[in-house]
Amino acid sequence: MSDVEGLSYRSAGVDLDAADRAKGALKELVARTRDENTLSEMGLFGGLYAVPRGVGDPVLVSSADGVGTKLKIAFLAGRHDTVGRDLVNHCVNDILVQGATPLFFLDYLATGHLEEGVVTEVVKGVAQACLENGCALLGGETAEMPDFYSRGEYDLAGFIVGIVDREDILDGSRVRAGDVLIGLGSTGLHTNGYSLARKIVFDVLGLHVGDLIPGLERTVQDALLAVHRSYLPSLRKTLVAGRVHGLAHITGGGIPGNLPRALGPGQGARVHTGSWEVPPLFQALQNAGKVATEEMFRVFNMGVGMIVISSRDHADAVANELAAAGERSWILGEVVEGAGVELV
Amino acid sequence: MSDVEGLSYRSAGVDLDAADRAKGALKELVARTRDENTLSEMGLFGGLYAVPRGVGDPVLVSSADGVGTKLKIAFLAGRHDTVGRDLVNHCVNDILVQGATPLFFLDYLATGHLEEGVVTEVVKGVAQACLENGCALLGGETAEMPDFYSRGEYDLAGFIVGIVDREDILDGSRVRAGDVLIGLGSTGLHTNGYSLARKIVFDVLGLHVGDLIPGLERTVQDALLAVHRSYLPSLRKTLVAGRVHGLAHITGGGIPGNLPRALGPGQGARVHTGSWEVPPLFQALQNAGKVATEEMFRVFNMGVGMIVISSRDHADAVANELAAAGERSWILGEVVEGAGVELV
Repeated sequence: MSDVEGLSYRSAGVDLDAADRAKGALKELVARTRDENTLSEMGLFGGLYAVPRGVGDPVLVSSADGVGTKLKIAFLAGRHDTVGRDLVNHCVNDILVQGATPLFFLDYLATGHLEEGVVTEVVKGVAQACLENGCALLGGETAEMPDFYSRGEYDLAGFIVGIVDREDILDGSRVRAGDVLIGLGSTGLHTNGYSLARKIVFDVLGLHVGDLIPGLERTVQDALLAVHRSYLPSLRKTLVAGRVHGLAHITGGGIPGNLPRALGPGQGARVHTGSWEVPPLFQALQNAGKVATEEMFRVFNMGVGMIVISSRDHADAVANELAAAGERSWILGEVVEGAGVELV
Repeated sequence: MSDVEGLSYRSAGVDLDAADRAKGALKELVARTRDENTLSEMGLFGGLYAVPRGVGDPVLVSSADGVGTKLKIAFLAGRHDTVGRDLVNHCVNDILVQGATPLFFLDYLATGHLEEGVVTEVVKGVAQACLENGCALLGGETAEMPDFYSRGEYDLAGFIVGIVDREDILDGSRVRAGDVLIGLGSTGLHTNGYSLARKIVFDVLGLHVGDLIPGLERTVQDALLAVHRSYLPSLRKTLVAGRVHGLAHITGGGIPGNLPRALGPGQGARVHTGSWEVPPLFQALQNAGKVATEEMFRVFNMGVGMIVISSRDHADAVANELAAAGERSWILGEVVEGAGVELV
């Protein structure tokens, strides 16, 4: 052992200077997301955010999420500026369904070897989506973990805090049997079903990320990296007008797994699967993978990323507001007495 | 392709039912961390937490962190109930140094294949530490990501939100040249320096996790899995009494990297490295790895996990309060005019 050279943290694979430099490059990006309640600069231990005034009985709504194996597509495509947007938009939607609008966001980025350019691209996506959603990027953690992640790979998770007045919480209590389900389009798979989609696209079809998906005029990477969209801009006005009885963000578990969480006790839903056009991407995946239709609906959003529950009387007004916001929507079905989601 | 069997999410490596079962087993654990402001049950999209009343000008303090490669020791030891405590305590300390006490916590657990028993152990640790710190475990994400993590491995990150009255924020502005630095003991490496420590213990010394560390009567796994402690219980009373001018949580970057963040502009610190006894674990690591002393102080906490900055007049009162809370402490040095940390 006497001939062993002295060890340092750098020789063990961790470069604290590189981490500092990457964080420095992000400061300006992050600064752009600051709002009047953001009290801290980056680099402190924790981020500071004043509780906004003017909310009668303020309730914080918080959610944690990851991007999942959609990241693998980003690695293959070498495109790192979209996954941060996926993450933020996903989190924004997750608290929106309880009636909350975002205050701030923190990200967690873990990688085996910190490549400054990649980290900057990833956080650029996070910061951009924070800006678009009016959400401060308050902090985050960039972890360099040698021997943990494969070369060129990383994991990305995030955490959002929003606010809602207690009387405006959407918790299923406003939903009535007979209410209509209004579906809003997704941009693609959003962030769910990627393990199955990758198996179909790469293993069954043997495609590369730059290849066209059979029957579609889009490459694998363009189709599978389409950004998980935020429904906040389209729904903000309708939410404030009080015409929303409930919202369901269609993520893992699909419509059958997510819609029940927006309903009250003793309520189920009937969804007419012919009421909207399932985008060709899902049909291509189903055909190639010979996936059962029931499984497709349990794994994928099938073209519907958000469901608005509204009274039948207000359905037209809601649809008009959505159209005015540039949103395509469909009446998917209705709330019924019972339990579960019946796909008809 | 006609002989390919129909694919399902399970065949692609994701078992939604197992995820549901694991989450079910955790419900009771998590329920124990609820407090009067926790409005939501697990399983909703986002967690609900009422802004506590009685804080004059409430500011939220939030931090994200991971456990880092300390997880590798947990994998090797097959011990999964401590890393969650590391994570929560780390986050609690990170917001404590800004004067905040915790409200709620969310975790992110990502793994290649979801093993229910392991997930339950990990979240048990998270929930236990949340209880100990008076912090609600409000939610979290358990992600199954095939082809991402090695068999039996996972990553664990967390996000905390705490609260502080704006006038009680610790931001360096109360710190004066001449203030004393009071060090509080760490339990071991806490959650920093593990990439270097693993290299020394496993590569240089060739030890297994069950072996004794040379010169210590502790095994590698016991020494390296010692739980990152929370300083909240010991410091709560002293904080409330207003006798704390600043706090520094000694994490990655060591004393030189973290102490400056607690100081005001134009201030530095002089730390007498002989003022406390560096625990034998650090000496064993330094000797075996032939690590330069300066590097040791930059990578490890060297036995000091938290530094309290107090006026010289109050130093005795603070030390007495800490002793009454069962805490060992040392006067490490003082705040000086200038910049940076001088180790003497």
